[in-house]
Amino acid sequence: MRPRLVLFGDSITQQSFAAGGWGAALADHFARKADVVLRGFSGYNTRWALRVLSRAMEGAAAAGGPDPVAVTVFFGANDASLPDQKQAHQHVPLEEYKSNLRAICAYFKEQWPSAEIILITPPPIYEPARIRDMYGEDDSSKLPERTNEAAGTYAQACLAVAKELNHHIIDIWTKMQQFPNWQSSALSDGLHFTPFGNSILFDCVLGTLESIGFSQESLQPDLPLFSEMDPKDPLKAFEI
Amino acid sequence: MRPRLVLFGDSITQQSFAAGGWGAALADHFARKADVVLRGFSGYNTRWALRVLSRAMEGAAAAGGPDPVAVTVFFGANDASLPDQKQAHQHVPLEEYKSNLRAICAYFKEQWPSAEIILITPPPIYEPARIRDMYGEDDSSKLPERTNEAAGTYAQACLAVAKELNHHIIDIWTKMQQFPNWQSSALSDGLHFTPFGNSILFDCVLGTLESIGFSQESLQPDLPLFSEMDPKDPLKAFEI
Repeated sequence: MRPRLVLFGDSITQQSFAAGGWGAALADHFARKADVVLRGFSGYNTRWALRVLSRAMEGAAAAGGPDPVAVTVFFGANDASLPDQKQAHQHVPLEEYKSNLRAICAYFKEQWPSAEIILITPPPIYEPARIRDMYGEDDSSKLPERTNEAAGTYAQACLAVAKELNHHIIDIWTKMQQFPNWQSSALSDGLHFTPFGNSILFDCVLGTLESIGFSQESLQPDLPLFSEMDPKDPLKAFEI
Repeated sequence: MRPRLVLFGDSITQQSFAAGGWGAALADHFARKADVVLRGFSGYNTRWALRVLSRAMEGAAAAGGPDPVAVTVFFGANDASLPDQKQAHQHVPLEEYKSNLRAICAYFKEQWPSAEIILITPPPIYEPARIRDMYGEDDSSKLPERTNEAAGTYAQACLAVAKELNHHIIDIWTKMQQFPNWQSSALSDGLHFTPFGNSILFDCVLGTLESIGFSQESLQPDLPLFSEMDPKDPLKAFEI
């Protein structure tokens, strides 16, 4: 049976199958070799994610089949919403964020002992674009509901949990800010990803998967590839 | 458990999760409501598809779970390759194409009795682009390996099988040719789809799904939507 990758996260995961999205790119990349299962929940923080975890994973793994090879856990952008601004109801305190992440990882290790867990930090935030998104173009008297500094603090916490539990980590907060004009080249509204931003994360996920021996090259295609069939006797390829 | 849609076909299915692809668009559209399972096999005709069918479907349905709601069966572009041109080894005679399609549908009705089968005809062909793709820009002395006329004949055969078996049918061969400049607006190389061509098929699949009562509106989201949570008491949404 084909190996599976499960993507669990907030809107940046839920939207990952839109045009140019990192989830669709994974499904395309592994089209003949693995199934990619989408479990994204827009707006969710780790508190709500933890609450729905077992229901969210219904059907994600094959019943009686092997564990998924890997699961990405990508929360924090909502937890890091400021507790005194417009999206305060998404905020989760830092220590609870860490303990929720630990509980989510523990659930996966319990359910799918052989699955590799790939934590992804919240992305960087471009505040002027957040103000525009929240309040409209001209309202410069407002404060953003998320800041890059707060996102960075949650990213550090995510890194700490990954280190503590010995899980894989993608520090997209740091990585993305290494690209020129990341504020508009990688982010569409100061929070969500442009196709270029999606490609940055896609590359990071591919790299992490490769580090656990899961790559295009290492995986067998599910069935004979057309390019490897003998034009003079194509049916021979199926005699296995 | 989330309902599933299974996409079974040749390269136009295998590539359907590339940027702008019709498969990814379905996964995105139903992100909170259904899983889309990709089973595309580039280069395959119905003869080879039939040969691998049970292995191709491993893991496509949840073991012990409900049948997939629908499966798209999208073959014929390769079967219709001309028997005396460069891709002759992909050619399947018309009567065998029909009988293979019947056998594929019978397999699905046997395995997943409640699944709706959606047959999709081969797409139209733009021959000058096929010659360029096969032989290079300047070789006008060559004949194409596929013709629009042959694809149309196979499309008619696919329609006939759908009618005979009372399955759903998407006649993408006819539909696509109703768009201005379909030769280049909908097709990238005279055979495969541009993002616009993908959007035409996506709309057709959505319409067919809607006709069986499967739509954004009719499906419940898997878990509470953030937009419907009470900002003053978000956890209330989870007390179900």
